[in-house]
Amino acid sequence: MSERQKRRPKARPRITIGLIGFGAFGRLVAAHLGPLFPIFVHDPACGADGQAAAKGVTLCDAATAGACDLVILAMPVPQLSAAIAAIRPHLRPGATVLDVCSVKALPAKIMRAELPDHVDIIGTHPMFGPQSARGGVKGLKIVVCPIRGPGARPLAAYLRKTFGLDAIIATPEEHDREAAMVQGLTHLIAKVLVEMEPLPRNMTTASFDLLLRAVDMVRYDAPEVFYAIERMNPFAPDVRRRFFALAAELAESLEKNGAA
Amino acid sequence: MSERQKRRPKARPRITIGLIGFGAFGRLVAAHLGPLFPIFVHDPACGADGQAAAKGVTLCDAATAGACDLVILAMPVPQLSAAIAAIRPHLRPGATVLDVCSVKALPAKIMRAELPDHVDIIGTHPMFGPQSARGGVKGLKIVVCPIRGPGARPLAAYLRKTFGLDAIIATPEEHDREAAMVQGLTHLIAKVLVEMEPLPRNMTTASFDLLLRAVDMVRYDAPEVFYAIERMNPFAPDVRRRFFALAAELAESLEKNGAA
Repeated sequence: MSERQKRRPKARPRITIGLIGFGAFGRLVAAHLGPLFPIFVHDPACGADGQAAAKGVTLCDAATAGACDLVILAMPVPQLSAAIAAIRPHLRPGATVLDVCSVKALPAKIMRAELPDHVDIIGTHPMFGPQSARGGVKGLKIVVCPIRGPGARPLAAYLRKTFGLDAIIATPEEHDREAAMVQGLTHLIAKVLVEMEPLPRNMTTASFDLLLRAVDMVRYDAPEVFYAIERMNPFAPDVRRRFFALAAELAESLEKNGAA
Repeated sequence: MSERQKRRPKARPRITIGLIGFGAFGRLVAAHLGPLFPIFVHDPACGADGQAAAKGVTLCDAATAGACDLVILAMPVPQLSAAIAAIRPHLRPGATVLDVCSVKALPAKIMRAELPDHVDIIGTHPMFGPQSARGGVKGLKIVVCPIRGPGARPLAAYLRKTFGLDAIIATPEEHDREAAMVQGLTHLIAKVLVEMEPLPRNMTTASFDLLLRAVDMVRYDAPEVFYAIERMNPFAPDVRRRFFALAAELAESLEKNGAA
């Protein structure tokens, strides 16, 4: 510890948060972190007035948001590079940048390549959305991937302590391997079942009711969510092909065995 | 009403129940009805001693079980005809016979054809098993199909009042049409997912956890349950073909759109 740090008073200046992107998930982040930290939101799609309504949130330009202690990138993977380019000149040495994308290997690669060496990087995937977080985030899962610097474990500990989140430390590859099944299978099954509507809601079993609830949680997700999982998770094609191959095999065996 | 009936005292003799078949579901029936009615169980597979353990239950021959006021047939569809043949000579005029098979049109046809005209017939499908009824049957669903005679509605009312069951009156065809989707889809999806084990249990979403719970409720069902649904529900082949066709269509569109 340097002499200067030792002399610093205990009450540290409050951490500032820059939030780039104010879509559905950005708003959820602002709702939970807004009461605890000053949040500076930059979203090219928001007028300086219009959406400023969110409590404890200041709309600002890329320079102000990019100069915060912690910068959260809350946009789909395809917009990540443009967002990084906008804040890059303003990032301060020692700041931490994190993303919230639902795949982790590709954003890690992009952030490592395109963010300056003087910032730390953490990948996160909150495994919930505005829908599943409606009743609060306690007990919900978030995956935290160390990418550059030592911040991932303290962040995970903070999220557990402050929000009761089930924070899981993993590498981007470990995450993507599991998420390919978790999200890939959920969305594939939901897509097929939604095509079969009207689904029964009356003479149902307990297990079918659970299936319906699972489908209802993802059926209104933006189509980009599904295509992002299928296109940007390197393990998704294998999961998808195995699922469809097993389905075809089962179909064939049922026809062959003379099922009615 | 005859003179003799008018003179009968108000306290009617207790209804006796004959239970043919003492497998997993027969035992569940005995556990719930045993404390309320004398139950006479006939199962060729049970020695007169061995399984008699169940409380309030008397093991007996086909003649005694078949002579009860209410005779419950608790066996898979393929064994229905043999069970009817065994009790047929002993059925008393005015008795009611009901089945608990998970399809309804085929058992209705068999019972109508093979049971004597002097008994009433009700089809039932308790849409739960020992697994889902572990925490009690209150709120669980049972479909009740009038087949012959006026007993179905009073039975449904009794099951609602006494056990809190959600008793749904339907024709066998209405039941089979819904059940083909409810049970067909649950089992098809479960079969494919079980083949994909090990499934993730760590970095999961709320919707995937619901899928896993649905799978876990049916994965240990006897293989006959799955094949019975697929073979004996006249609507199952159409549901199955639509499901697999939609899956194949989705697979193709994902490959074509150059998803990773």
